[in-house]
Amino acid sequence: MSEIVVLRLSERGYRDLRITTHCALVARAFGAKKIFLNGNQDNEIGKTVQRINDTFGGDFEVEYYTQPGAVIKKMRKEGYCMVHLTMYGEKPGEIAKQVRKKKKIAIVVGADKVPSSVYEEADYNVSITRQPHSEVAALGVFLHYLNEGKEEEMEFAHAKKKIIPTAKGKKVNEQK
Amino acid sequence: MSEIVVLRLSERGYRDLRITTHCALVARAFGAKKIFLNGNQDNEIGKTVQRINDTFGGDFEVEYYTQPGAVIKKMRKEGYCMVHLTMYGEKPGEIAKQVRKKKKIAIVVGADKVPSSVYEEADYNVSITRQPHSEVAALGVFLHYLNEGKEEEMEFAHAKKKIIPTAKGKKVNEQK
Repeated sequence: MSEIVVLRLSERGYRDLRITTHCALVARAFGAKKIFLNGNQDNEIGKTVQRINDTFGGDFEVEYYTQPGAVIKKMRKEGYCMVHLTMYGEKPGEIAKQVRKKKKIAIVVGADKVPSSVYEEADYNVSITRQPHSEVAALGVFLHYLNEGKEEEMEFAHAKKKIIPTAKGKKVNEQK
Repeated sequence: MSEIVVLRLSERGYRDLRITTHCALVARAFGAKKIFLNGNQDNEIGKTVQRINDTFGGDFEVEYYTQPGAVIKKMRKEGYCMVHLTMYGEKPGEIAKQVRKKKKIAIVVGADKVPSSVYEEADYNVSITRQPHSEVAALGVFLHYLNEGKEEEMEFAHAKKKIIPTAKGKKVNEQK
């Protein structure tokens, strides 16, 4: 299993709180280990993630950066394969097959206009749909590719609540 | 090809503007025909969608409702197969295979707490990941299932700009 991290790239703090929270929760739910956000440690997103970890398990982390360039440099140095999600990129299918074999994967999603250096720096630029839509959905769908669609089989360690898939209503295994 | 519509279910207006906009754009990008939103015609989301239709093509529509119950009733009457996306639902793979054969599909995503009647009313309750995350990503991934991953091959009629997938940078066919 690859180690996957997500970088929400922004020059100006994390901007939209709810969209950024959705990015973090999608990263967690689809098996990433960590999300990097521009900002300081104030911080509602970290608290939301911690609350969800406490209930639904796992050790998903939020880490903050101040300089996007520095965090990219660090990732390169640490050997991450860097995939930038952009509507201008290549089709995801073949690229996901190659990326899936890598030990360390960093997925980059932009929060505002992404500098052209990132297109150059990335190992792959990938487009989900060739249309403008949402970094939240692009992230979910690309992680779904990397997981070969098996995200619903993932187990999250020390979960207090485990959802049991069911046709009607809500079925939850609760650890007291 | 099935006709797909999306219902963003809410008792209280569309609430979060950006998340709702992302839902609409994801619905459009992955081939749905229309999104139903609670609210009046004020309305920034309609304008955003129209601007994107004008540039990137297609006839994706935003339609407003005031009573969620009435819109569900209408869908039932018109023969839509109703799929409710919820973290408590069943695994998506097998269900998508069945739903894909239907002529008319309505995908329901909640904007706030979804009444238990919706779980009962739905033909299928489907979970993407069994974890709490984002209706935007859940919608994208489920539409990706319905499309069998072929959304990047979709053509949007009378597009002024068509994105050409490319490894580095931006390549756009522009119709003057």
